[in-house]
Amino acid sequence: MSKELVFGHKSPDTDAIVAAMAYAYLQSKLGYDVEAVALGEPNMETSFVLKHFGVAAPRVVKTVSNEVDSVMLVDHNEPQQSADDIDKVTVTHVVDHHRINGFNTAAPLYYRAEPVGCVSTIITNMFAENKIDIPAQLAGLMLSAIISDTLLLKSPTTTDKDREAVKALAQIADVDYQSYGIEMLKAGTNLSAKSDAE
Amino acid sequence: MSKELVFGHKSPDTDAIVAAMAYAYLQSKLGYDVEAVALGEPNMETSFVLKHFGVAAPRVVKTVSNEVDSVMLVDHNEPQQSADDIDKVTVTHVVDHHRINGFNTAAPLYYRAEPVGCVSTIITNMFAENKIDIPAQLAGLMLSAIISDTLLLKSPTTTDKDREAVKALAQIADVDYQSYGIEMLKAGTNLSAKSDAE
Ligand SMILES: [Mn+2]
Ligand SMILES: [Mn+2]
Ligand SMILES: [Mn+2]
Ligand SMILES: [Mn+2]
Repeated sequence: MSKELVFGHKSPDTDAIVAAMAYAYLQSKLGYDVEAVALGEPNMETSFVLKHFGVAAPRVVKTVSNEVDSVMLVDHNEPQQSADDIDKVTVTHVVDHHRINGFNTAAPLYYRAEPVGCVSTIITNMFAENKIDIPAQLAGLMLSAIISDTLLLKSPTTTDKDREAVKALAQIADVDYQSYGIEMLKAGTNLSAKSDAE
Repeated sequence: MSKELVFGHKSPDTDAIVAAMAYAYLQSKLGYDVEAVALGEPNMETSFVLKHFGVAAPRVVKTVSNEVDSVMLVDHNEPQQSADDIDKVTVTHVVDHHRINGFNTAAPLYYRAEPVGCVSTIITNMFAENKIDIPAQLAGLMLSAIISDTLLLKSPTTTDKDREAVKALAQIADVDYQSYGIEMLKAGTNLSAKSDAE
């Protein structure tokens, strides 16, 4: 099995970056040779999250066909949101929570989508289905992605599965998700910097 | 939650009919109001299977928007293989093992595809994930679908997951899958009738 890259959409948000890291970790445990990368630099919120849990940002790539023949997508499926040369590689796996639009394949693939608030919620359940433990640090990142996508479980896209995942991940990461969540969302909107400027 | 219809592709094979019945059973256990239907009459093989396990064929429909607002697809995703008025309803769930082609949605949905030999293999695993028992009669039907799609585990699309599902289902159904499988495939090709005619 040759190496595959795992990545989220362009202009990555916290879920796009974290879900790639989480899915790459899960797939490596299942025997795949994978590396999580990103199609852009982390935004302010994601930088805060990575720093908080002491994790390095994934390598940024613009194209993928110069490195690999096949890839795994998280948090997107639409070609225009993906790598510039996505048409030159085979997509073998997708984990997503968006509508399917313009995504066509030449061959069968693994595709997992659920109408939930965050891809990291789906991946949390996939760890359980495969009976693989989530390391505390990774749980902290995945918790952050759900807080980001659901605005601390307050967005209309939030489901019971997101709420359950947040509780489970907060316990593994040993984080008070309410206070951490507010701090994290503030870092993303850079409220403090704005207040300084205003 | 309003009622939804569950169905496989036009010119249904055994998997298209059986997977609809199996997924409808699973979804009903998960709280959905669903009915398995078919986009055509059972072929010779499927008729043999239904008769063997004493199960009535699902109701045949040509259109669905006259009955329901939303539907669940099994064993296909391409609109031209689906109900004639598939564009007039919302697809909420798909379970499939084919490439994705021309399938677009307006909203997020549940989509589960795996590159395995048969949809009934995927549904077998979904029963386990949801800790729901498969009734013996239904296990016999699902076993038949896998035998049909994989030509008794001999097609190049056969995976270890299909082999494991066949063993598990044969045990639940209390069927010797080798001898039953040959009998079933013969009924489908109507070898006996051909021999008579030749
Ligand atoms: Mn995103
Ligand atoms: Mn997301
Ligand atoms: Mn079929
Ligand atoms: Mn099939």
